[in-house]
Amino acid sequence: MNNFNKVTVTDGTRTELHDLLNLTGAEISVNTLPAGISVPFIHSHKKNEEIYAIIEGEGTAVIDSEKVGLNKGDWIRISPSAKRQLFASNDNNLKYICIQVKENSLENYTVGDAVI
Amino acid sequence: MNNFNKVTVTDGTRTELHDLLNLTGAEISVNTLPAGISVPFIHSHKKNEEIYAIIEGEGTAVIDSEKVGLNKGDWIRISPSAKRQLFASNDNNLKYICIQVKENSLENYTVGDAVI
Repeated sequence: MNNFNKVTVTDGTRTELHDLLNLTGAEISVNTLPAGISVPFIHSHKKNEEIYAIIEGEGTAVIDSEKVGLNKGDWIRISPSAKRQLFASNDNNLKYICIQVKENSLENYTVGDAVI
Repeated sequence: MNNFNKVTVTDGTRTELHDLLNLTGAEISVNTLPAGISVPFIHSHKKNEEIYAIIEGEGTAVIDSEKVGLNKGDWIRISPSAKRQLFASNDNNLKYICIQVKENSLENYTVGDAVI
């Protein structure tokens, strides 16, 4: 495996990065949900924590029946077992990143894992 | 632990999300490197794969002495042992996300890990 991989993500409905970047510790998708549209199903996970970042637009997440407003700059961690569904607002597309990682998989990080 | 956490990241030099969101599978930082400035050190990692996403601006990554151009929409995976340093261009701030995950920690993902 090379020491790095690079890809440029242009606007699109959904770009999954795992295979494009040879990721081994995460799956990451870059998504655009059109105005007035929701992800068409409620889902949870077996082992993976999900982290969502809102890049543009606005919408709502419903997490275990709780409504959470979504706006640019928002970041949300969701536990594997929580039931979730995302909705774009009626007026704006919702552009977001979704990061999947295995819950409790991180050991040390930043200063604790770095070699300088 | 709650089933989710949310935080809003406004512009700033660096926001680290691990403790703000109770992350257990990743550390994520949101960074702005001012025009003409570089991260002031070269570093590598012991166990963590890093994934960088360029959100705004432009710059250069030097990865094991190879120069890689950075522009909005670019995503880069870097192996733990690779030596890396980021530089903003002289004309524009470089806004980027850095995701740290333990190499080879992901098992199943998306359809393989979801419950619908």
